[in-house]
Amino acid sequence: MTHEVLDQQLAFLREIDRLKSVVRQSPLLDRSRKENSAEHSWHLAMYALLLSEHAAASVDRERVIRMLLIHDIVEVDVGDTPIHDVGAGSSQAELEDAAAVRLFGLVPGEQGAAMLSLWREFEAAQSDDAKFAKALDRVQPLLVNLRTDGGTWRENGVTLEQVLERYGPVIARASPTLWAACEQGVREHFAARGA
Amino acid sequence: MTHEVLDQQLAFLREIDRLKSVVRQSPLLDRSRKENSAEHSWHLAMYALLLSEHAAASVDRERVIRMLLIHDIVEVDVGDTPIHDVGAGSSQAELEDAAAVRLFGLVPGEQGAAMLSLWREFEAAQSDDAKFAKALDRVQPLLVNLRTDGGTWRENGVTLEQVLERYGPVIARASPTLWAACEQGVREHFAARGA
Repeated sequence: MTHEVLDQQLAFLREIDRLKSVVRQSPLLDRSRKENSAEHSWHLAMYALLLSEHAAASVDRERVIRMLLIHDIVEVDVGDTPIHDVGAGSSQAELEDAAAVRLFGLVPGEQGAAMLSLWREFEAAQSDDAKFAKALDRVQPLLVNLRTDGGTWRENGVTLEQVLERYGPVIARASPTLWAACEQGVREHFAARGA
Repeated sequence: MTHEVLDQQLAFLREIDRLKSVVRQSPLLDRSRKENSAEHSWHLAMYALLLSEHAAASVDRERVIRMLLIHDIVEVDVGDTPIHDVGAGSSQAELEDAAAVRLFGLVPGEQGAAMLSLWREFEAAQSDDAKFAKALDRVQPLLVNLRTDGGTWRENGVTLEQVLERYGPVIARASPTLWAACEQGVREHFAARGA
Protein backbone atom coordinates (compact mmCIF):
# COMPACT_ATOMS: atom_id res chain seq x y z
CA MET A 1 0.00 0.00 0.00
CA THR A 2 1.24 3.51 -0.72
CA HIS A 3 -0.33 6.57 0.83
CA GLU A 4 1.56 9.66 -0.27
CA VAL A 5 0.02 12.10 2.22
CA LEU A 6 0.71 9.79 5.17
CA ASP A 7 4.24 9.12 3.93
CA GLN A 8 4.95 12.86 3.85
CA GLN A 9 3.45 13.41 7.29
CA LEU A 10 5.58 10.61 8.73
CA ALA A 11 8.71 12.02 7.05
CA PHE A 12 8.04 15.36 8.78
CA LEU A 13 7.51 13.59 12.12
CA ARG A 14 10.88 11.87 11.64
CA GLU A 15 12.59 15.13 10.69
CA ILE A 16 11.49 16.89 13.87
CA ASP A 17 12.94 14.10 16.04
CA ARG A 18 16.10 16.22 15.83
CA LEU A 19 14.50 18.89 18.06
CA LYS A 20 15.28 16.52 20.95
CA SER A 21 18.99 17.18 20.30
CA VAL A 22 18.77 20.99 20.27
CA VAL A 23 20.12 22.04 23.67
CA ARG A 24 18.92 25.25 25.30
CA GLN A 25 20.72 27.44 27.81
CA SER A 26 18.26 26.68 30.63
CA PRO A 27 18.91 23.77 32.96
CA LEU A 28 16.39 21.26 34.27
CA LEU A 29 15.12 22.22 37.72
CA ASP A 30 17.34 19.54 39.30
CA ARG A 31 20.31 21.04 37.37
CA SER A 32 21.31 17.57 36.12
CA ARG A 33 21.70 18.85 32.55
CA LYS A 34 20.51 21.52 30.09
CA GLU A 35 16.98 21.37 28.72
CA ASN A 36 16.35 20.46 25.08
CA SER A 37 13.87 22.22 22.84
CA ALA A 38 11.52 19.24 22.44
CA GLU A 39 10.90 18.75 26.16
CA HIS A 40 10.77 22.55 26.56
CA SER A 41 7.97 22.60 23.96
CA TRP A 42 6.08 19.93 25.91
CA HIS A 43 6.48 21.89 29.12
CA LEU A 44 5.25 25.10 27.48
CA ALA A 45 2.20 23.29 26.10
CA MET A 46 1.49 22.23 29.69
CA TYR A 47 1.89 25.84 30.80
CA ALA A 48 -0.74 26.84 28.24
CA LEU A 49 -3.01 23.98 29.34
CA LEU A 50 -2.83 25.14 32.97
CA LEU A 51 -2.50 28.91 32.84
CA SER A 52 -4.73 30.25 30.05
CA GLU A 53 -7.23 31.61 32.58
CA HIS A 54 -4.60 34.20 33.51
CA ALA A 55 -4.42 35.71 30.01
CA ALA A 56 -5.49 39.36 29.90
CA ALA A 57 -7.33 38.85 26.62
CA SER A 58 -9.63 36.02 25.63
CA VAL A 59 -7.32 33.39 24.14
CA ASP A 60 -8.03 30.15 22.30
CA ARG A 61 -6.21 27.72 24.58
CA GLU A 62 -5.99 24.96 21.99
CA ARG A 63 -4.48 27.32 19.39
CA VAL A 64 -1.94 28.51 21.97
CA ILE A 65 -1.04 24.88 22.69
CA ARG A 66 -0.58 24.14 18.97
CA MET A 67 1.52 27.30 18.59
CA LEU A 68 3.81 26.27 21.45
CA LEU A 69 4.13 22.70 20.19
CA ILE A 70 5.54 24.03 16.90
CA HIS A 71 7.18 27.29 18.02
CA ASP A 72 10.74 25.93 18.20
CA ILE A 73 10.69 23.46 15.29
CA VAL A 74 12.76 25.85 13.14
CA GLU A 75 15.64 25.12 15.55
CA VAL A 76 16.03 21.75 13.80
CA ASP A 77 17.70 23.83 11.07
CA VAL A 78 19.02 26.92 12.86
CA GLY A 79 19.55 25.97 16.52
CA ASP A 80 18.48 27.86 19.63
CA THR A 81 19.03 31.59 20.03
CA PRO A 82 19.35 32.46 23.73
CA ILE A 83 17.37 35.47 24.95
CA HIS A 84 20.54 37.04 26.35
CA ASP A 85 22.31 36.86 22.94
CA VAL A 86 21.42 40.46 22.19
CA GLY A 87 23.47 40.44 18.99
CA ALA A 88 20.92 38.22 17.21
CA GLY A 89 18.71 40.34 15.04
CA SER A 90 16.96 40.47 11.70
CA SER A 91 19.35 38.07 9.97
CA GLN A 92 18.40 35.43 12.55
CA ALA A 93 14.73 36.12 11.86
CA GLU A 94 15.32 35.58 8.13
CA LEU A 95 17.13 32.30 8.76
CA GLU A 96 14.30 31.11 10.97
CA ASP A 97 11.67 32.01 8.40
CA ALA A 98 13.56 30.10 5.73
CA ALA A 99 13.75 27.12 8.09
CA ALA A 100 10.01 27.34 8.71
CA VAL A 101 9.34 27.39 4.96
CA ARG A 102 11.50 24.30 4.46
CA LEU A 103 10.28 22.30 7.43
CA PHE A 104 6.55 23.03 7.28
CA GLY A 105 6.90 22.62 3.51
CA LEU A 106 7.48 18.92 4.21
CA VAL A 107 3.89 18.73 5.47
CA PRO A 108 1.47 18.22 2.56
CA GLY A 109 -1.05 20.78 1.31
CA GLU A 110 -3.20 22.95 3.49
CA GLN A 111 -1.92 21.30 6.67
CA GLY A 112 1.62 22.52 6.07
CA ALA A 113 0.42 25.97 5.03
CA ALA A 114 -1.62 26.26 8.23
CA MET A 115 1.38 25.28 10.36
CA LEU A 116 3.60 27.85 8.64
CA SER A 117 0.94 30.50 9.14
CA LEU A 118 0.55 29.61 12.82
CA TRP A 119 4.33 29.74 13.33
CA ARG A 120 4.55 33.16 11.65
CA GLU A 121 1.69 34.39 13.83
CA PHE A 122 3.66 33.31 16.90
CA GLU A 123 6.79 35.06 15.66
CA ALA A 124 4.90 38.29 14.85
CA ALA A 125 3.48 38.30 18.39
CA GLN A 126 0.60 40.59 17.48
CA SER A 127 -2.50 38.42 18.00
CA ASP A 128 -3.79 37.76 21.51
CA ASP A 129 -2.99 34.05 21.17
CA ALA A 130 0.57 34.78 20.03
CA LYS A 131 1.14 37.38 22.74
CA PHE A 132 0.12 34.87 25.39
CA ALA A 133 2.23 32.10 23.85
CA LYS A 134 5.25 34.45 23.75
CA ALA A 135 4.63 35.38 27.38
CA LEU A 136 4.67 31.74 28.47
CA ASP A 137 7.91 31.25 26.51
CA ARG A 138 9.39 33.93 28.78
CA VAL A 139 7.72 32.80 32.02
CA GLN A 140 9.06 29.24 31.96
CA PRO A 141 12.81 30.02 31.78
CA LEU A 142 12.34 32.91 34.22
CA LEU A 143 10.84 30.54 36.79
CA VAL A 144 13.64 28.04 36.14
CA ASN A 145 16.21 30.74 36.85
CA LEU A 146 14.48 31.62 40.12
CA ARG A 147 14.71 27.96 41.20
CA THR A 148 18.30 27.38 40.06
CA ASP A 149 20.08 30.16 41.90
CA GLY A 150 19.90 32.61 39.00
CA GLY A 151 20.58 30.08 36.23
CA THR A 152 21.28 31.79 32.90
CA TRP A 153 21.14 35.25 34.49
CA ARG A 154 24.07 34.51 36.72
CA GLU A 155 25.98 32.76 33.89
CA ASN A 156 25.51 35.75 31.60
CA GLY A 157 25.92 38.51 34.20
CA VAL A 158 22.37 39.72 33.63
CA THR A 159 21.20 42.47 36.02
CA LEU A 160 17.84 43.04 37.68
CA GLU A 161 17.16 45.90 35.29
CA GLN A 162 17.92 43.73 32.27
CA VAL A 163 15.61 40.99 33.52
CA LEU A 164 12.80 43.47 34.07
CA GLU A 165 13.37 44.91 30.58
CA ARG A 166 13.76 41.63 28.66
CA TYR A 167 10.93 39.69 30.30
CA GLY A 168 8.59 42.31 31.74
CA PRO A 169 6.87 43.91 28.75
CA VAL A 170 6.34 40.61 26.90
CA ILE A 171 4.79 38.94 29.95
CA ALA A 172 2.93 41.92 31.42
CA ARG A 173 1.03 42.86 28.26
CA ALA A 174 -0.33 39.30 27.94
CA SER A 175 -0.90 38.58 31.64
CA PRO A 176 -0.54 41.14 34.43
CA THR A 177 -1.27 38.32 36.89
CA LEU A 178 1.64 36.21 35.70
CA TRP A 179 3.95 39.21 35.58
CA ALA A 180 3.03 40.23 39.13
CA ALA A 181 4.06 36.79 40.38
CA CYS A 182 7.21 36.77 38.24
CA GLU A 183 8.27 40.29 39.16
CA GLN A 184 7.93 39.59 42.85
CA GLY A 185 10.11 36.50 42.50
CA VAL A 186 12.69 38.35 40.43
CA ARG A 187 12.98 41.23 42.90
CA GLU A 188 13.28 38.84 45.83
CA HIS A 189 15.94 36.84 43.97
CA PHE A 190 18.13 39.84 43.21
CA ALA A 191 17.59 41.29 46.68
CA ALA A 192 18.78 38.00 48.21
CA ARG A 193 21.88 38.17 46.04
CA GLY A 194 22.47 41.72 47.23
CA ALA A 195 22.27 42.96 43.64
CA MET B 1 0.72 39.68 46.01
CA THR B 2 -0.47 36.16 46.72
CA HIS B 3 -2.57 34.18 44.28
CA GLU B 4 -3.23 30.73 45.67
CA VAL B 5 -4.58 29.15 42.48
CA LEU B 6 -1.64 30.37 40.43
CA ASP B 7 0.82 29.24 43.12
CA GLN B 8 -0.65 25.73 43.01
CA GLN B 9 -0.60 25.61 39.22
CA LEU B 10 3.04 26.67 39.18
CA ALA B 11 3.92 24.07 41.82
CA PHE B 12 2.42 21.37 39.56
CA LEU B 13 4.35 22.72 36.57
CA ARG B 14 7.54 22.48 38.63
CA GLU B 15 6.72 18.94 39.78
CA ILE B 16 6.32 17.64 36.24
CA ASP B 17 9.75 18.96 35.24
CA ARG B 18 10.92 15.56 36.50
CA LEU B 19 9.27 13.85 33.49
CA LYS B 20 12.31 15.08 31.52
CA SER B 21 14.43 12.68 33.58
CA VAL B 22 12.27 9.57 33.04
CA VAL B 23 14.15 7.56 30.42
CA ARG B 24 12.28 5.25 28.06
CA GLN B 25 13.53 2.16 26.25
CA SER B 26 13.27 3.74 22.80
CA PRO B 27 16.27 5.55 21.34
CA LEU B 28 16.24 8.83 19.42
CA LEU B 29 16.25 8.24 15.67
CA ASP B 30 19.95 9.14 15.51
CA ARG B 31 20.58 6.58 18.29
CA SER B 32 22.60 9.12 20.29
CA ARG B 33 20.72 8.30 23.49
CA LYS B 34 17.41 6.98 24.88
CA GLU B 35 14.29 9.13 24.63
CA ASN B 36 12.78 10.67 27.76
CA SER B 37 9.07 10.77 28.51
CA ALA B 38 8.70 14.56 28.25
CA GLU B 39 10.07 14.83 24.72
CA HIS B 40 8.16 11.64 23.83
CA SER B 41 4.98 13.40 24.98
CA TRP B 42 5.78 16.39 22.77
CA HIS B 43 6.39 14.12 19.81
CA LEU B 44 3.11 12.27 20.35
CA ALA B 45 1.21 15.56 20.55
CA MET B 46 2.76 16.38 17.16
CA TYR B 47 1.63 12.97 15.87
CA ALA B 48 -1.92 13.84 16.94
CA LEU B 49 -1.65 17.30 15.35
CA LEU B 50 -0.60 15.76 12.02
CA LEU B 51 -2.38 12.43 11.81
CA SER B 52 -5.90 12.83 13.20
CA GLU B 53 -7.40 12.66 9.70
CA HIS B 54 -6.41 8.99 9.65
CA ALA B 55 -8.53 8.05 12.67
CA ALA B 56 -11.28 5.57 11.86
CA ALA B 57 -13.76 7.37 14.10
CA SER B 58 -14.41 11.07 14.40
CA VAL B 59 -11.95 12.27 17.03
CA ASP B 60 -11.55 15.61 18.80
CA ARG B 61 -7.97 16.40 17.80
CA GLU B 62 -7.46 18.95 20.58
CA ARG B 63 -8.66 16.50 23.25
CA VAL B 64 -6.31 13.84 21.86
CA ILE B 65 -3.45 16.35 22.05
CA ARG B 66 -4.28 17.17 25.67
CA MET B 67 -4.53 13.48 26.50
CA LEU B 68 -1.11 12.77 25.02
CA LEU B 69 0.47 15.78 26.75
CA ILE B 70 -0.56 14.35 30.13
CA HIS B 71 -0.57 10.59 29.40
CA ASP B 72 2.87 9.87 30.90
CA ILE B 73 2.88 12.35 33.80
CA VAL B 74 2.28 9.51 36.30
CA GLU B 75 5.80 8.33 35.45
CA VAL B 76 7.10 11.18 37.61
CA ASP B 77 6.13 8.90 40.50
CA VAL B 78 6.25 5.39 39.06
CA GLY B 79 8.67 5.47 36.10
CA ASP B 80 8.22 4.04 32.63
CA THR B 81 6.84 0.54 32.03
CA PRO B 82 8.16 -0.82 28.72
CA ILE B 83 5.62 -2.49 26.42
CA HIS B 84 7.75 -5.63 26.29
CA ASP B 85 7.75 -5.96 30.10
CA VAL B 86 4.90 -8.47 30.00
CA GLY B 87 5.10 -9.06 33.75
CA ALA B 88 3.61 -5.65 34.54
CA GLY B 89 -0.06 -6.03 35.30
CA SER B 90 -2.82 -4.81 37.53
CA SER B 91 -0.54 -3.81 40.39
CA GLN B 92 1.24 -1.43 38.02
CA ALA B 93 -2.14 0.00 36.99
CA GLU B 94 -2.98 0.61 40.65
CA LEU B 95 0.33 2.36 41.28
CA GLU B 96 -0.23 4.56 38.24
CA ASP B 97 -3.72 5.49 39.33
CA ALA B 98 -2.46 6.46 42.77
CA ALA B 99 0.23 8.58 41.10
CA ALA B 100 -2.41 10.26 38.96
CA VAL B 101 -4.50 11.04 42.03
CA ARG B 102 -1.49 12.58 43.79
CA LEU B 103 -0.11 14.54 40.83
CA PHE B 104 -3.33 15.88 39.31
CA GLY B 105 -4.44 16.54 42.88
CA LEU B 106 -1.78 19.26 42.98
CA VAL B 107 -3.82 21.14 40.36
CA PRO B 108 -6.57 23.20 42.02
CA GLY B 109 -10.29 22.53 41.77
CA GLU B 110 -12.10 21.54 38.62
CA GLN B 111 -8.97 21.85 36.53
CA GLY B 112 -7.23 19.06 38.40
CA ALA B 113 -10.35 16.90 38.40
CA ALA B 114 -10.68 17.32 34.63
CA MET B 115 -7.06 16.30 34.09
CA LEU B 116 -7.46 13.20 36.25
CA SER B 117 -10.61 12.29 34.36
CA LEU B 118 -8.88 12.77 30.99
CA TRP B 119 -5.93 10.63 32.10
CA ARG B 120 -8.26 7.84 33.28
CA GLU B 121 -10.13 8.02 29.97
CA PHE B 122 -6.80 7.51 28.17
CA GLU B 123 -5.92 4.55 30.38
CA ALA B 124 -9.33 2.93 29.90
CA ALA B 125 -8.90 3.21 26.12
CA GLN B 126 -12.63 2.91 25.44
CA SER B 127 -13.58 6.29 23.94
CA ASP B 128 -12.71 7.07 20.32
CA ASP B 129 -10.32 9.83 21.44
CA ALA B 130 -8.55 7.50 23.87
CA LYS B 131 -8.34 4.66 21.35
CA PHE B 132 -6.68 6.97 18.85
CA ALA B 133 -4.32 8.40 21.47
CA LYS B 134 -3.33 4.86 22.54
CA ALA B 135 -2.76 3.93 18.89
CA LEU B 136 -0.36 6.85 18.40
CA ASP B 137 1.46 5.82 21.58
CA ARG B 138 2.13 2.49 19.82
CA VAL B 139 2.83 3.91 16.36
CA GLN B 140 5.65 6.22 17.42
CA PRO B 141 7.96 3.63 19.06
CA LEU B 142 7.12 1.13 16.30
CA LEU B 143 8.33 3.59 13.66
CA VAL B 144 11.44 4.31 15.73
CA ASN B 145 12.25 0.60 15.84
CA LEU B 146 11.87 0.35 12.05
CA ARG B 147 14.40 3.18 11.64
CA THR B 148 16.89 1.94 14.25
CA ASP B 149 17.53 -1.57 12.99
CA GLY B 150 14.91 -3.17 15.21
CA GLY B 151 15.57 -1.05 18.30
CA THR B 152 13.81 -2.42 21.37
CA TRP B 153 12.56 -5.48 19.47
CA ARG B 154 16.06 -6.66 18.78
CA GLU B 155 17.20 -5.83 22.34
CA ASN B 156 14.34 -7.82 23.83
CA GLY B 157 14.30 -10.69 21.33
CA VAL B 158 10.77 -9.78 20.19
CA THR B 159 9.47 -11.78 17.22
CA LEU B 160 7.37 -10.73 14.23
CA GLU B 161 4.37 -12.49 15.73
CA GLN B 162 4.81 -10.66 19.06
CA VAL B 163 5.04 -7.30 17.30
CA LEU B 164 1.87 -7.98 15.31
CA GLU B 165 0.10 -9.07 18.50
CA ARG B 166 1.29 -6.26 20.80
CA TYR B 167 0.89 -3.35 18.38
CA GLY B 168 -1.60 -4.51 15.76
CA PRO B 169 -4.97 -4.59 17.52
CA VAL B 170 -4.41 -1.30 19.38
CA ILE B 171 -3.41 0.54 16.21
CA ALA B 172 -5.73 -1.17 13.72
CA ARG B 173 -8.95 -0.59 15.64
CA ALA B 174 -8.25 3.15 15.80
CA SER B 175 -6.75 3.60 12.35
CA PRO B 176 -6.63 0.89 9.67
CA THR B 177 -4.67 3.34 7.49
CA LEU B 178 -1.91 3.74 10.06
CA TRP B 179 -1.81 0.03 10.77
CA ALA B 180 -1.53 -0.81 7.06
CA ALA B 181 1.55 1.41 6.80
CA CYS B 182 3.00 0.05 10.06
CA GLU B 183 2.33 -3.61 9.23
CA GLN B 184 3.99 -3.30 5.84
CA GLY B 185 7.07 -1.78 7.47
CA VAL B 186 7.15 -4.42 10.19
CA ARG B 187 6.89 -7.33 7.74
CA GLU B 188 9.61 -5.84 5.52
CA HIS B 189 11.84 -5.31 8.57
CA PHE B 190 11.58 -8.88 9.81
CA ALA B 191 11.87 -10.27 6.26
CA ALA B 192 15.11 -8.30 5.79
CA ARG B 193 16.40 -9.80 9.05
CA GLY B 194 15.51 -13.25 7.75
CA ALA B 195 13.23 -13.72 10.76
